[in-house]
Amino acid sequence: MDEKWISKAVIKRLPRYYRYLGELLEDGVERISSGELSDRMKVTASQIRQDLNNFGGFGQQGYGYNVRHLYDEIGKILGLDRIHNMIIIGAGNLGQALANYTSFERSGFKTVALFDIDPAIKGKSIRGIEIHMTDELPEFIKANNVEIAALTLPKAEAVAMADVLVHNGVKAIWNFAHTDLNLKLPQDVVVENVHLAESLMRLSYNLTTRESDRKNK
Amino acid sequence: MDEKWISKAVIKRLPRYYRYLGELLEDGVERISSGELSDRMKVTASQIRQDLNNFGGFGQQGYGYNVRHLYDEIGKILGLDRIHNMIIIGAGNLGQALANYTSFERSGFKTVALFDIDPAIKGKSIRGIEIHMTDELPEFIKANNVEIAALTLPKAEAVAMADVLVHNGVKAIWNFAHTDLNLKLPQDVVVENVHLAESLMRLSYNLTTRESDRKNK
Repeated sequence: MDEKWISKAVIKRLPRYYRYLGELLEDGVERISSGELSDRMKVTASQIRQDLNNFGGFGQQGYGYNVRHLYDEIGKILGLDRIHNMIIIGAGNLGQALANYTSFERSGFKTVALFDIDPAIKGKSIRGIEIHMTDELPEFIKANNVEIAALTLPKAEAVAMADVLVHNGVKAIWNFAHTDLNLKLPQDVVVENVHLAESLMRLSYNLTTRESDRKNK
Repeated sequence: MDEKWISKAVIKRLPRYYRYLGELLEDGVERISSGELSDRMKVTASQIRQDLNNFGGFGQQGYGYNVRHLYDEIGKILGLDRIHNMIIIGAGNLGQALANYTSFERSGFKTVALFDIDPAIKGKSIRGIEIHMTDELPEFIKANNVEIAALTLPKAEAVAMADVLVHNGVKAIWNFAHTDLNLKLPQDVVVENVHLAESLMRLSYNLTTRESDRKNK
C-alpha cells in the first residue's frame, strides 16, 4: 500500500479512529460494524467505510471490522509501531504537564529529557525524567537519538531555539509557541503547531454566534 | 452584515489573521496590501482578498487594508470585543500553565479562579488567581458570571464534571480531556476540544512519511 494515496482529510481523521478503537480494545470489544462505530463517533457509516477502505478494506460483510487488526494497521500508518525519542524544551508548567502525560509514552513517544535555562532546577526530575540545561542540548540530541522536540517557550525565544534543535538533528518540532514555526524552518523539518489562543478564539466565536442565535429566536 | 453567511473554513482562518494583524500593530504598521500579507502568511493574495471580502471588503485599491480597522472588525466577529470570565478546572501543571498565559487576558478571556479537589492547595494563588475547592463551584459560577470553563481533568472525571458545570450555567467548555465531550453534552453547549495526543500523532505521521520519502529518493 502506498501511503501517499491517502488524502490529507482522511489522515486528519485517523488519530480519532485510533482513539475510539483503543477504547473499544480496552472494553474488550473484538469486532465492530461500521454502523456501531458510526453511532459512537457521530460520523456517518458510509464515511467510515470510505475512510477505512483506504487501508485495504478490512471490513467484512456480516462480520464488521476486526478491532485489534484495524487499530494496529492505523497505528502503523501513524508511525506508532516504534519508539520516538522526544525532549521537552522549557520545564515550566506546560513542559511539566507534557512530561506527566503517561499516555504519550503508551503511543510510543518517549520523553527522555526536559531542558531549561534555570540553574535552580538543574538535575531535578519530573516522573523520573531529568531536567538538563540547554547548553547540553547538542551533545544530548546526538547521544540519545532524539527525533522530536516539544517547544514550550515564549514566542520571542522559540525561533532561535528551533534553529539550534534542527541544526543538531531534531527532525520534528511540536510547537506550543504563538508563532508559525513551519514558515521559519527548512521545509524538510516537520512542524506541528498547537495554537492554544486560536483554539480559545474559535470557542469564543461559537459562543458569540450561539448567543446571537438565541436572541434572534 | 449577517455573520451566519461566513463559511466555516473562513472562520477557522480568522484567528490566524487576527494574530498576524496583531503583530503588525505591535510593529507599528498601519496599512498592508494583500500581497504583503500573503508573503508573511504564506497564503495566496487572492485567498486573502476573498476571505477578507466576507467582512465588507475593507481593502482599497492602491491603499490596502487598514490594519487597525481590520484587526478590530475580526476581533468583534470572534467575540473578543468584550470580557469573558473563565474558570480553570484542575490546578495541576496544565491548569497552572493556562492560568499563567497573560495573552489570553489581553484577548478578553479573564481567568477568575482555578478549582481543584486537593485541600493542600486550597486558597493558594497562581498569578493572583485563587485556587478554590470544587464544592464551591455552583455558588462561584453564579456569583461571577462565568461563561467558559477550561477542563484539565483526566478523561474518567471530565464527563461528570462537565455535567456539573453545564448544570450550573457554564455555556462553553474548553476541553483538554482525551474524550469528545461535545458528543456527551446538550447541543447548545459550546465545546472546543484540544486533543494533544492526536496532535502528536499527526506529527508522527508526517515524520514517518517524510522518512519513507527520503529513503525512496
